[in-house]
Amino acid sequence: MILKNDLLLRAARGEKTERTPVWLMRQAGRVLEEYREVRKKANDFKQMVEMPELAAQVTIQPVDILGVDAAIIFSDILVIPEAMGLPYKMVENRGPWFDKVVENEKDIQQLHIAQAEDLQYVMDAIKLTKKELNGRVPLIGFAGAPWTILSYMIEGKGSKTFSKAKKFLYTQPLLAHQLLEKITQSTINYLKGQVAAGADILQLFDSWAGVLSPSQYAEFSLKYISRICDAISEVPVIVFAKGAYFARTEMSKLNCNVIGLDWNMDIAESRKLIGDKKTLQGNMDPCLLYADFATIKNETEKMLRAFGPSHHIANLGHGLYPDIERDKVRCFVDTVKSFRFNV
Amino acid sequence: MILKNDLLLRAARGEKTERTPVWLMRQAGRVLEEYREVRKKANDFKQMVEMPELAAQVTIQPVDILGVDAAIIFSDILVIPEAMGLPYKMVENRGPWFDKVVENEKDIQQLHIAQAEDLQYVMDAIKLTKKELNGRVPLIGFAGAPWTILSYMIEGKGSKTFSKAKKFLYTQPLLAHQLLEKITQSTINYLKGQVAAGADILQLFDSWAGVLSPSQYAEFSLKYISRICDAISEVPVIVFAKGAYFARTEMSKLNCNVIGLDWNMDIAESRKLIGDKKTLQGNMDPCLLYADFATIKNETEKMLRAFGPSHHIANLGHGLYPDIERDKVRCFVDTVKSFRFNV
Repeated sequence: MILKNDLLLRAARGEKTERTPVWLMRQAGRVLEEYREVRKKANDFKQMVEMPELAAQVTIQPVDILGVDAAIIFSDILVIPEAMGLPYKMVENRGPWFDKVVENEKDIQQLHIAQAEDLQYVMDAIKLTKKELNGRVPLIGFAGAPWTILSYMIEGKGSKTFSKAKKFLYTQPLLAHQLLEKITQSTINYLKGQVAAGADILQLFDSWAGVLSPSQYAEFSLKYISRICDAISEVPVIVFAKGAYFARTEMSKLNCNVIGLDWNMDIAESRKLIGDKKTLQGNMDPCLLYADFATIKNETEKMLRAFGPSHHIANLGHGLYPDIERDKVRCFVDTVKSFRFNV
Repeated sequence: MILKNDLLLRAARGEKTERTPVWLMRQAGRVLEEYREVRKKANDFKQMVEMPELAAQVTIQPVDILGVDAAIIFSDILVIPEAMGLPYKMVENRGPWFDKVVENEKDIQQLHIAQAEDLQYVMDAIKLTKKELNGRVPLIGFAGAPWTILSYMIEGKGSKTFSKAKKFLYTQPLLAHQLLEKITQSTINYLKGQVAAGADILQLFDSWAGVLSPSQYAEFSLKYISRICDAISEVPVIVFAKGAYFARTEMSKLNCNVIGLDWNMDIAESRKLIGDKKTLQGNMDPCLLYADFATIKNETEKMLRAFGPSHHIANLGHGLYPDIERDKVRCFVDTVKSFRFNV
């Protein structure tokens, strides 16, 4: 099916576009009243992820309500540990929880390499969303980067320091590589499945990139991200490694189309470090959306000018916070959509 | 009194030293069995901070047990909000908690500008420690940087995103500046009091530097750190702004002697950005101390070589984690102390 709005895909490939495309990380979520309504139909967040009809519905909401240039499939990066044998729960106001974690070699050997079919509910949600989107905008598929997935498998929950996971890297580097290998293979299978189901572009989230030292990041994260990028040739790939400012030069060598920036990363410096071949995505501070409309408009235009007229996908530098007002989000989206460069 | 070991002070001033001095952030703490013993004598962490005899005792322990080149007064950055009118609690395994927070202009007006006398227990602890240290090593005094203090005053507790505090900066910039002004004046009074009581050197901790965008960091944090640095001429000043990698060039212009680096910051790049006038402090990943002795020694020597023979104070890139084994900490300290450059 031909897309009516393919701005995101063209920008990702570095092609010229009439204007900068825009979407927001965590755009399908509590910011929208309509999301909260659908949410009531499921017991919890996780069940919603597992019900294709509900997942498709909330995936499409931001396209209708916020006017973004892409939908991102409603899911969670933790479906991969679960498909590999470590089920997760989402505890309200607390975050993820794993009853079983990886502690030793035997635990790693018992993990299954996930296949796309193990996550049939995601594939079904993608197919249903594609059908219902009916070519309006592209659909983004995603997965967690292997280091971030490993850190949850070891910690069993969120953490401020991820020191348990880092301890594992320092004390059991060979086991860590074994585990990362299994996660990487699972992730490739999963992402290829998403593409087969209809995802037009993929994003890898390395949410905990920023807790590693530069040398550990190169050894335990970037290496596996690189493997995944090399394995995906069907659609463009976006890599968002939050906090990995120290790896920007190395990331420019990844076989991906887009590098996501967080709001700490200076735009001009990032462009210099990454070079002009990649499209950059980001990078407004999500807290800007607490400001008044004039400030949001002004800062958003400043950001657009700093990125320039091409090779940019407008987004926040992190996921949308749930207590932002919907109209503030719209102001960000509308500012991007109405802005034109005088070229 | 003349110090028997003044390596830290000489290194801070950029003078040549026989070897690199070493201390560790959070060296007085649960890592030491002897600390846990003293801890039993107080109801909680906070009471220990407020009892000069106990504070002095645990301040000196790492000098005896770990052999570090400096003591740092056992206290907490949150004594300043308390002295200004917002009392804090330390909830076991949970962190700080404020019953009252800053919400509006009236709350700010009601805050008191702290004087050194308001924190007499800290002054007493410093005097007692200096007496008992008897010139063995220098004593480090400290305070939180104004932005970090403000963030606790607004949030009332720790946070992953500090989005409430950031929202305050975006929505109430004038009030934020009023509050930062009061915190800055209080901090200057407090630090000058610490010097008068005997502190040989001071460190400013900007623990939440890394959550701000570069432009907000310049406006709401660096400006006030700069004011504090300008106000202190009696002793050397160390500024440690965790996560503020994007501000390294601007930080080189601060009227301070030492810039602390966290473990994400590349050493050579930091030296290039900061120039050769400042001493750098840091920056080993605290999780390295989970590794085996050979790895710790090897990585520590690698770090020492990367910093070079002068203008360096060895430290971690963050506070010591409480579950590290004491002998691993000693291994880090001993490696620094026995290392010599072939110059």
